[in-house]
Amino acid sequence: MKCGVICASLSLLLGGCCCFPPGPLTPAIAMPEWLDGVERQFEGRAVPGDEAKLRFVIDLAVENVRRGTGGPFGAAIFDSRDDRLIAVGVNSVVPANQSWAHAEMTAFSHAQHKLGTFDLTNCVLVSSCEPCAMCTGATPWSGVEALLYAASGDEARAVGFDEGDKLPEWAQSLEKRGVRVVGPMLEEDAREPFRLYQEKDGKIY
Amino acid sequence: MKCGVICASLSLLLGGCCCFPPGPLTPAIAMPEWLDGVERQFEGRAVPGDEAKLRFVIDLAVENVRRGTGGPFGAAIFDSRDDRLIAVGVNSVVPANQSWAHAEMTAFSHAQHKLGTFDLTNCVLVSSCEPCAMCTGATPWSGVEALLYAASGDEARAVGFDEGDKLPEWAQSLEKRGVRVVGPMLEEDAREPFRLYQEKDGKIY
Repeated sequence: MKCGVICASLSLLLGGCCCFPPGPLTPAIAMPEWLDGVERQFEGRAVPGDEAKLRFVIDLAVENVRRGTGGPFGAAIFDSRDDRLIAVGVNSVVPANQSWAHAEMTAFSHAQHKLGTFDLTNCVLVSSCEPCAMCTGATPWSGVEALLYAASGDEARAVGFDEGDKLPEWAQSLEKRGVRVVGPMLEEDAREPFRLYQEKDGKIY
Repeated sequence: MKCGVICASLSLLLGGCCCFPPGPLTPAIAMPEWLDGVERQFEGRAVPGDEAKLRFVIDLAVENVRRGTGGPFGAAIFDSRDDRLIAVGVNSVVPANQSWAHAEMTAFSHAQHKLGTFDLTNCVLVSSCEPCAMCTGATPWSGVEALLYAASGDEARAVGFDEGDKLPEWAQSLEKRGVRVVGPMLEEDAREPFRLYQEKDGKIY
């Protein structure tokens, strides 16, 4: 492979050449073992109805706290045409040492990895909590056609989580981009992961 | 490992148990080989001054287009105390099939992976372009103390990229959170990756 612009420029700047042999690939994130198991067990199964989907991701959030594998947030990607589970995600910021590893982001990542495409058309993102500023911004890039969430951002803030600075009209902004937004829903159930997290004296990062 | 809440609940919902043996880890993203080479070659070297840092990431963006490994965006994480390069990132959305794999996000990811922490205190994020809504939201979560960027978001929009819906006062919002924001800068130079991308008839996703 011929060395080009960057080598000419960087070698002037820093001294050196960027003609390298192939290097090892660097994985950025991995799923907790239990979650990988859940995904393998339940992928392809239909979970009809908004409430059942929300209970599923709330359970993921609870389980993530209970097993000590991250923050009190769970998410999943379902096929919007037949309600089948495609992929799951949980907050893995602290164990993975990745600040972007929120539940929604890891769910996007796993779904796209499995489907072999960056475009989740005909998919719905289901989250145990209203997405933060980063995850809201990431949602249109994922191609999902709907977002369904349980707890409001205020519930997360009430236990000390920072949701970031979002547009007050964030939901309308997503709708304009073709992402249907449904939530908050099942707010009483959605408090359980937060309650458990506080009980376990979880790290608020 | 004892099976708990999720198993009880999910087994009712879907039928089945989540007591699994350990599964394989799923890598979500990897660096292009040439970029991994650049990082290994230049990591730890000091790049003093804002302009030199910006030229470095603009070169990464150009090289990413030239090599066909993604969109016209480059980023890097430097130590703000001694200007040393910690990690690099480029837009890898299309080749990695990951919608979140913007240059800033992959730079965060690689830096945090290398340093073994989700908190990039004493670091600066340098980007060839103003960050989009997702990357802006991700910036405070990363812990960086400054953001330095070259092209304005308008330059990216002019060639067809969607920057997402951000707060008009996004820079002030970051500043309030302790992230110093500097840019746009070197805008003429920063157009080069976009020009090259259009010339190569790049995919706007």
